This record gives sequence, C-alpha cells and structure tokens, in this order.
Amino acid sequence: MKKVKVGIVGLGRLGIEHARNLAFKIPNAELIAVCSVVQDEVDKVQKEWGIPYGYTNYDEMIKNEELEAVAVLSPSPFHVKQIVSALDAGLHVFVDKPLGVTVEECKEAEKAVERNEDKVFMVGFMRRYDPSYAYAKKLIDEGRIGKPFLIKCTSCDPEHTIDGAIRFAATSGGLFIDMAVHDIDLARWYLGSEVDQIYAIGGSYVHEEFAKYGDGDNVCSLMKFKDNSMALFYAGRDAAHGYQVETEIVGTKGSLRIAAEPAKNMCKIFDNNGVVSECSQSFQERFSEAYVIEMQEFINCIVEGRKPDITVYDGTKNTEVAFAATKAFQENTVVHL
Amino acid sequence: MKKVKVGIVGLGRLGIEHARNLAFKIPNAELIAVCSVVQDEVDKVQKEWGIPYGYTNYDEMIKNEELEAVAVLSPSPFHVKQIVSALDAGLHVFVDKPLGVTVEECKEAEKAVERNEDKVFMVGFMRRYDPSYAYAKKLIDEGRIGKPFLIKCTSCDPEHTIDGAIRFAATSGGLFIDMAVHDIDLARWYLGSEVDQIYAIGGSYVHEEFAKYGDGDNVCSLMKFKDNSMALFYAGRDAAHGYQVETEIVGTKGSLRIAAEPAKNMCKIFDNNGVVSECSQSFQERFSEAYVIEMQEFINCIVEGRKPDITVYDGTKNTEVAFAATKAFQENTVVHL
Amino acid sequence: MKKVKVGIVGLGRLGIEHARNLAFKIPNAELIAVCSVVQDEVDKVQKEWGIPYGYTNYDEMIKNEELEAVAVLSPSPFHVKQIVSALDAGLHVFVDKPLGVTVEECKEAEKAVERNEDKVFMVGFMRRYDPSYAYAKKLIDEGRIGKPFLIKCTSCDPEHTIDGAIRFAATSGGLFIDMAVHDIDLARWYLGSEVDQIYAIGGSYVHEEFAKYGDGDNVCSLMKFKDNSMALFYAGRDAAHGYQVETEIVGTKGSLRIAAEPAKNMCKIFDNNGVVSECSQSFQERFSEAYVIEMQEFINCIVEGRKPDITVYDGTKNTEVAFAATKAFQENTVVHL
Amino acid sequence: MKKVKVGIVGLGRLGIEHARNLAFKIPNAELIAVCSVVQDEVDKVQKEWGIPYGYTNYDEMIKNEELEAVAVLSPSPFHVKQIVSALDAGLHVFVDKPLGVTVEECKEAEKAVERNEDKVFMVGFMRRYDPSYAYAKKLIDEGRIGKPFLIKCTSCDPEHTIDGAIRFAATSGGLFIDMAVHDIDLARWYLGSEVDQIYAIGGSYVHEEFAKYGDGDNVCSLMKFKDNSMALFYAGRDAAHGYQVETEIVGTKGSLRIAAEPAKNMCKIFDNNGVVSECSQSFQERFSEAYVIEMQEFINCIVEGRKPDITVYDGTKNTEVAFAATKAFQENTVVHL
Repeated sequence: MKKVKVGIVGLGRLGIEHARNLAFKIPNAELIAVCSVVQDEVDKVQKEWGIPYGYTNYDEMIKNEELEAVAVLSPSPFHVKQIVSALDAGLHVFVDKPLGVTVEECKEAEKAVERNEDKVFMVGFMRRYDPSYAYAKKLIDEGRIGKPFLIKCTSCDPEHTIDGAIRFAATSGGLFIDMAVHDIDLARWYLGSEVDQIYAIGGSYVHEEFAKYGDGDNVCSLMKFKDNSMALFYAGRDAAHGYQVETEIVGTKGSLRIAAEPAKNMCKIFDNNGVVSECSQSFQERFSEAYVIEMQEFINCIVEGRKPDITVYDGTKNTEVAFAATKAFQENTVVHL
Repeated sequence: MKKVKVGIVGLGRLGIEHARNLAFKIPNAELIAVCSVVQDEVDKVQKEWGIPYGYTNYDEMIKNEELEAVAVLSPSPFHVKQIVSALDAGLHVFVDKPLGVTVEECKEAEKAVERNEDKVFMVGFMRRYDPSYAYAKKLIDEGRIGKPFLIKCTSCDPEHTIDGAIRFAATSGGLFIDMAVHDIDLARWYLGSEVDQIYAIGGSYVHEEFAKYGDGDNVCSLMKFKDNSMALFYAGRDAAHGYQVETEIVGTKGSLRIAAEPAKNMCKIFDNNGVVSECSQSFQERFSEAYVIEMQEFINCIVEGRKPDITVYDGTKNTEVAFAATKAFQENTVVHL
Repeated sequence: MKKVKVGIVGLGRLGIEHARNLAFKIPNAELIAVCSVVQDEVDKVQKEWGIPYGYTNYDEMIKNEELEAVAVLSPSPFHVKQIVSALDAGLHVFVDKPLGVTVEECKEAEKAVERNEDKVFMVGFMRRYDPSYAYAKKLIDEGRIGKPFLIKCTSCDPEHTIDGAIRFAATSGGLFIDMAVHDIDLARWYLGSEVDQIYAIGGSYVHEEFAKYGDGDNVCSLMKFKDNSMALFYAGRDAAHGYQVETEIVGTKGSLRIAAEPAKNMCKIFDNNGVVSECSQSFQERFSEAYVIEMQEFINCIVEGRKPDITVYDGTKNTEVAFAATKAFQENTVVHL
Repeated sequence: MKKVKVGIVGLGRLGIEHARNLAFKIPNAELIAVCSVVQDEVDKVQKEWGIPYGYTNYDEMIKNEELEAVAVLSPSPFHVKQIVSALDAGLHVFVDKPLGVTVEECKEAEKAVERNEDKVFMVGFMRRYDPSYAYAKKLIDEGRIGKPFLIKCTSCDPEHTIDGAIRFAATSGGLFIDMAVHDIDLARWYLGSEVDQIYAIGGSYVHEEFAKYGDGDNVCSLMKFKDNSMALFYAGRDAAHGYQVETEIVGTKGSLRIAAEPAKNMCKIFDNNGVVSECSQSFQERFSEAYVIEMQEFINCIVEGRKPDITVYDGTKNTEVAFAATKAFQENTVVHL
C-alpha cells in the first residue's frame, strides 16, 4: 500500500492525538517527522514511536524532501505562516481550526491555496466527520427534513477544565472564536447559506476572570442568514456535567437532533440519584472517532487526487463570522456582514 | 348529575387515596360512608371532608340503605367475606387486588358475583387504566405489533420503604402475590392467553429477613402460556433509584416498551453526576392518575349499566398464577397449571 | 365543603375545557353560569351538565348575585373590559393569557386589580402549574443549579393544526404574542429578572400566508435581561411530529431540562422506523393536568383568602415583552425596554 | 515498531472484517497470509490489499515459517481442529466464538492450550471489549452497584436478515448456541459465578422454518447460578427495528443498563412518526469498534507476553451452558449442570 509521508508541527494536547492517529490509525499514512519548540516533546515521541525525523524548527522540517504533507497543530497565531510556507514548498497541508487569527491572515492563506491548486488543503472542522453529524448531513441531503431553516447549537466545556481555560483566556480569542466556531461551521454547512446579521450577548456568570479579556464564560448569539434562515448559538465554559455538544436542525418537513444528551457511552447507572447518564468529559473523548476519520479523509484526498469538502474559504468564513459575533457581544449591538 | 353513593372500608395508605378520589375527583360519585376498625381514622376523615356516615363495623355500614356501592380497601384476608356480603346486600363492589388470599376463596367470590349478575364488580388491577398501558393495549388491538408472543415485566419497590416491607413480610404472601400479580395481570391481558407452566427462582440478596418467610427480596420467573407465548418477570423490593415498573411487549411485527425508564416527571437534571432522571418513589406516585381513572370507570359502569373489562375471573386467575409462581420458587421446580 | 360559585365566559376550544374542569374536576368549585355569544353553545352545556344559568350577554351574567367568581375565556380583545367590570362588580377573576391586547389595556386591568385588592385575580400562565415545570422551579429555589443565567425555550404547534392557525393569523397578534408569551413568562419566572433588550428574526418558511400579517411561521429571539441573564426563544407553527414545548434552564452549578422530548406518554414503539416516541398533538393534551391544577389554585386562593403567585403585573410584563419581540422581528432591529 | 505476523482462515462476512482490521487498524499487526477454500476470495484479498501469501489449504498456511499467529474465522465445525494444529505448530491463536460445536471438542481445545502454555489463546467474545460493556465491568469492579445478583439480556437479529438465518438454520446449532452464547458469556463475566440450573422455552412465532431444526425464532431462558444469582435471557431473529443487544445488571446497591435502546448513532429524527431513533442494523455495525479492540488486545497480549482475560475455559463453559439451554428448550424441562 502506498503510504503518504507526513510531518506534524505542534505536539500539545490535540497535536499529540493527531500525531498518534497518523502514526497508528491511518493505514495509508506514515508519520516520518515531528516538530515542536519543546525539544523534550520531540525526543519523547521520536523515541517511543520510532519516528525518524525530529525538529524544533518548522522551516527545517518542511525542507525534508521525503515529506509529502504536513499537519499544522501549532498555536493559532502560527497557522497562516506555516500553511503558506508548506504549500509553497510543495506540501499538502492539514491545519487545525482556526484557519488564522484575523480575517486578513485568512485571505493570505486563501492566496497560497489558490496558487498551489494541485495541493490538498484542509481545515480541521472535525465535527463534519463525526458519524452522527455526517449521518444528519446525509439525511438532509436526501430531503428527509425538507429545507433546513433553523439550527440550534450548544457547545460547553466542562467546569473541571476551567483553570486551563482561564490561563488561556488572554490569547484564546474568546468563546466565539475558540469554541462556537465549530457550531458556525456546522450552521453554514447544514443551512447552505452565509451569515448576514449577528446579535450576541453574554457575560462572566461564574468566573469573572473572562470579563477582563472582553470575553465571557457563557455567551449566546442569534444570527440571520442571507437566505433568511436562522441560527441560535450557546457556548459555555463551565458545564457541571461535562463536555456538551448538542445540535438541532429544523427543516420544513421535520427536524434532526444530534446528541440529544451528551452521554459518555451506552451505559446508564441506576442508583440513588435516579437514572444517570454520565457525560463525555472532553472534546477529545467526544470526537476521538471524528479526529481519525477527518485525518483519514485528508490522506485519502492526497492518495486519490481529490479535494476535501472543507475548503480554505470555509476557514475564512467561519473566522469572519466568529469575529463578527465577538464584536456584537463586546459592543452589545447587531453586526451586519 | 346523578351521583353514585359510595362507602369505603379500609383507610390505610391506599384506602385513604381511594377515599380522597371518591370524595373529590370522581364527579359522579359521592363518598357518604367510611369504615375502619380504627375509630380515629373514621373520625378524622368524617370531620375533615364532611362525610355523613362513619363506621368501625363493616356489616353495619352495608346496612346503610342510602349506599349503592362499596370500595373494599381492607387487608386482603377480609376481601372475600366483605365482597360476598356487600354483593348479597345488593351493592356494587370495587375491591383492591388481590381478590382473595387463596384460590378457594376466590371461587367463593366468583359465586357471589354470578348470583348477583346485575351488580357491577371490579378488581383493582389499576395498571390497565394507566394512560401509557392503556395506549399500549390500544396499539396492540389495532395490530401495530402483530401478534404479541412475549412480555417482559419489571416491578421493584424502592429500598427506602424496605422497613415497612420487612414488617409486612410475614403476611404479604411474598413478592409474586404482593407485587408481581400486577405483572401477571398485564401478561394475561396483553397476551390474551392463560399460563400453562411456571419456573421461578430468587433469593434474599440484600435483606435476609425475607428468607425466613419463604420469600425473597428479588425473584424472577419465566412462564409459558397455553398458546406458547412467553412471559419474563422480575420483581424486587430494594431498588436504589426508586419505584420501577417497566414493561415490554414483543409481537410478530414490532414491540412496545412502557416506561423505558421509571422517570418521576419530565424534568432532567444536568449536574456533576451527569444527566439525571429522578425516579418515581412509590406506586402511589407512579400510578396516581391510574387510580382515579380506574375508580371513575367503576362508577361509570354503575351509572351506565356496563360491566368492567376486569372480571372476578381475572382476580382468580391472577391469584392462581401468583400462588403457582410462589410454589415454583419455594420448591425450585416447574409448576404446571 | 364550601364550594365557590363560578361563571365562565367563552366556550370555545379552551373555554369548554376550563368549563369542564370547573364543573367536574375542582371539588370546591361549582360552575353555575355559562356565557357565550353563541346561544347553541350555552344551551348545549346547560343541558348536558345541568348548569342552572346561561347567558349570551356577559354584563347580564355578572349581575347574577349568586356568582362569586368568573373565568374569562373570551377572545383576547374582550379580556380587559370583562376583567374590569367583573372586579368592579365584586367578583374574583381568572383570565386566560394574554391579559390584554395592548400594554395600555393591561395598565387598565392593573388599576382595576389595585382598587379591588380584596379580590383574587389570576392570569392563566398554566405552564407554571405543570408538575414538571413546578418541580424545576422547586429545584431552582432549593439552589440545585446555583443561580440561573440562561433559559432556552422551544414552543411549536403541530403542522396538522396549520389551517386553523392561518385562519386565526389576522387577529392572533403573531407568534410571540400568541405562543412565545408562555415562554416569556417562564423566562421571567425562572430567571427572576426583567427583560432589557430584545433581538428577533424569523420568517414564513413553510406557509407564506403568515407574512402578509407581519407574522412568521417560525421565529427566534435572543433577549438580555436586566441582571445580564439571557433567554433564547424559538417558536413555530408547523412541527411535523406534534406539539412541542421544551425548556432548559442553565445555572452556575448545573442545568435543568424539562420535556427533553415532547413524548405523548411513556409508551415507545419499536418498529421498522426504529425506536419511536409518539408526541403530544396539542397544548390541551400536553398541559391537561396543568389546566386543572391552575384552576384549582385559583379556587383555593379564593377559599383560603390567598393571592396567586401570578399577578396582574406578570400579565402586563409578558404582554410588553411579547410586543417588543414582535416589533424587533418586524423592524429587524434591537428593541430596548 | 515490532509487528506480529498474522494469518487468517475464513474470509466470510465476519472473517473479512477481522482481516481488514488486522491489515489496516491494528498498528502492531501485519496480515501476511489469508486462507479460504474459495480461491476467488483469497485472490481478491491478496490483490486488493497486497497480502503476500494466499492459501486454500489451512494446513499449508500454518507451515509458513514467517507466521506468528492465526485468526480462526472458519465455520464452527472446523474450529477445534484448526486451533489444535495451529497451537501445536507453535502459533498464537485467536478463534471466533464458539470454541467448538460439542463440549467434548472444547475439552480437546483445552488440552491443546494447556500443553502450549507459552502461547496466547483467545476466544472472540467481543462484547467484553465494547467500550460500554467494558465500562460497566469497570463500574462493577469498583463496587458501584454492590454485588451483582441478576442480569437481564436481550439479543435480537433484524428481520431483514431472516433469509440468511433460515438458510443457516440446519447448521447454526440454534438460537442459544448461535446468539445467546454472547449473553451467557456476559452473564458469567459480570456475575462471576457459574450456571447451575436452566429452564428455557420458546417457539417459531414468526417463521415456522426454525421448528423443524429443533430451534425457535424467539426463545427465553431463566438460569440460576451456583451462588444463587439469576440470569434472564431473550434471543430472537426477527426484530422489526434492527439489531438489538440490551443488557441490565442488577446489584445490591444499584443497577447498570447498557444500550437502553439499540440506537444506530446519536442522530434522532423528529418527523410525522414522532421522535425516532434509528437502530443498528447488524452486529457488525453495533460492535465494529469492539472487533478492533478485541483483536488489538490479542496482538498486544502476544507482544507483551500476557494472557487475555477470556480463556479457553470460558469457551468451554459458554458452550456447555448454551447446549444445556438448547436441551432445556427442546425437552421442555429444567436442566441441571
């Protein structure tokens, strides 16, 4: 079997998961290079998994002539620069969301993609690859609920990770950019239209630390799309029960609900609390399968000479909407796109 | 509106609920007499609700010429004697399950019913009147699941009432007679056949007190019906989560599940346990509506000159099966009917 | 038992249900008078239920000296006039929502209530009396979810009643006033704060008839409350699956979900569709119990000399917010209160 | 990474799935040989996946000196012979359930395992590796439900595969051996005790073809274990809704329910049927993840020099119980072990 030789940059919480998937769960991929500014992370992965090349300098890695593709899992401010140089070096590129940290940056990535149109480029909106979300898309495309005109989205991180979220608050970009951007992507995907008008509110109801960064710990937004369809968003950082992603799509003939409850698995506990469904405790737990399928799709696109459904323009649009929602929230106003 | 004048005997836990329903929730019934061997119970109800007649002697009550009907909520050993004397005194009779404490007794009740065929007689298998169980029956009668050939029944009392159950153990007759008899009635009703063969096992897994009365705190039975259909029963006394009654009916074209979870109401709690559905905590809580509908049906039968669907023979059959299951459990054998 | 003598005006779909409850399900109420402009409706009810007094003229009815209370179930434009004259005639008054059809009207009702402060006055926001909603309120008051800061509300009528809705469109006031007003009441009740700022969008996605009345068949609103808490509303008129009312309240320590699915009852069907929960098909079906408990509370308040928790000011506030949401939707803008 | 070189025999429906997992989803396994009596199956797999060795003769395959392990996915009557020859040839062996088709055969396998105690031997009771079943085991081992004393098991194949089941009827061994054996394994695993006494009934309620083979299309069994704990089994072949495996374990302090509904995924459909959860349609769909984890465990055991938790004796015991249940069903009696 032909295997695509891949390098990865970024070995943090999510980076290491992608690295593991590339190394062990994608049969037609071969992880041959890892890069991190932290030498110890590089050494550890190389040694434990027998990865031949290790780098602390990204520019050095992409000079490796064996490489065919890179996965960019570095902090968001590095994304666009690394995308551009990899594409221009003739590499296929996978980048975790967000595409970039400003809309202007995203436009630079667009240009690099356009001038390297023979390369596969994919942004990691992994929910589209979750089997339940993908099944919902299939049902919609088959007309099962008629024309979708409303989506309701909930995304909450668990309270038990709040310390990390607070440390990350200064640079996260806020709840819309950091978390709701996944829901924004789903809304655009399912509704098949672009955002026209955004209203957003919220606050720091539990942890006041977020307020000083112009962020909240819980925010809501109501958006009107160009075809007049609607999207309701709720994003939070401190759900007592765990990591919660629930989505409902309402159409002219019916509706779909994905993850009506954020159950951890199929095991329910009957005890003196009542009937208890324990919940997923992290996005990695909830979407572990989606991360594999997503990366598999990236590799398959390379092998088969196809382009992924998620384009660089999705990355730009999602960023644009997330920024506009942040503005609407911060200025307590309606933002028009 | 014509109101049926009713007397009730027995003002215990369930008796007082039936009395309250007759007094306040059945528009075409009038509770005019209450009877209990406990004078204080009689006085209290008469005074608080303005009931004109009070008795500590049942034979006195049924001489009251204003009475048209009696509800028998006394302890089970008194049932048949009170049924017979009330019917022979020209009164309509409602009796709580069980019909009697031996099959021979039940046969006496049958004879009294037969010689007073102009009277309404009804045994309180109230689950048949629960809206969800009644809906399942309607779906079955409409052919929605084809021909039913299997029923799976679970009935558990909550652990928090175990002290009462232990005190009651010597005279309860055991789990099959005291509790599973409701499931036996449902099985006969839904399957439309009679029991042929019974195997039963069980034990005192949590509270050894039951063993000395030839009873268990958790028992199971598998029964074969005359038309070869099947019934699986599980009854327990110590569910941590509350009062649990769940039923599934499997047919040749589909199946029905009633109360897939024993939820208290429609409110779910998302907290650090996960997603929690609190449970019903007693049969009165779970079946409060069924008790009203059941008694309403009894009164309506009197007013409209109809006979209820539950007959005295159901009372006898259910008792017979419950006794046979108890025998199968105690003797660790298969009992044929 | 002391029985409160009640008259009712309006014998339409909901009026007849309230009349039936007053006649048969509220033990300490006695329905002695019915009023409708349709003589046949009056005759029918009087005859069938044996109601002594019948009227086609409301002013005549409230002169009846036996009357102690009236239930106002007439069309909304008549509410305030009938409230005022009944209160000033010394009668206790129950009125179905909405209190009035303009905020100015509501203020008139307020004055009448204030100058008759010895009278019981109650507006029919019946959801507060639904056992699951009441249980949620109790849990919140006990601190179970900390301080609530977000409520998410869904209310949809079923598609199979769309013809009636279209006929009613010209005078209904629109989805916010006609339907979402119940959710607005729940939001104010659970959050314990008043609305500050409203954004609303929507459209006629399925049935274009609503557009010509400045209404939509599906609308959404996002509201900011004075204490910065938030409310998300979705209301629709054409749910394929039935009548759907779902509510979630998010607090600083947990959240509550009421009617996570709009199940008709506890019976699930397993057939070639999969596992099917049939849904409630009308608000009367979903809230039949709440209507009884609500009216019982009204009568009990009269008997016990108490005031209900729902005041005339709730009626005004809910109307005010519903109008502001309608304005926000029609003018595509943010409305401040 | 050290990779274990594996050969597989049997490329039928389940064999091909195991082959695919070994080839692509188990990083430390390498599928180097495939064997089937159907030359075309061998050719196809070799060509498509680039597998170096292909055989139509099993004895030839196990002579391949590169091989370290074999996976036996041939028809059940071949299992024991192939196990014995592979073990005696110095290979690690994975075999799909059932271990053998008679208890005597199983004893032969036991001896082969015992005389090759340095080899890893594992029987494919894959449910133990399903994440939800494994989680339940973990909770039980942690004492979450106290001591388990009852297990309730349901396993049904979907109606849409009935034609295959009928063709297979003559040689399947019947519902207990073919399907309920998985539940028997779960019961022994969770309860930690062995079966003592078995009662079983059933019939051909939908498809009479099964009767002539001494089998049924729906069967039930109630079993008593040596420690007096209990197990209720229901197995069927014609569920309208799909492939259904549901399990409940009741303990002295609470209970666990796995797959309370056989939902296909997390997507629910709200349409004019109501709220619909589509169901899994095959065991491969429901347990696809378990099959990977199971095989991964087999390979890891080889690499790490460990023995799997499932032993050859589990294979024998499960077979023994399944045969006894079949006997109880066929002879309509209680069988003691």
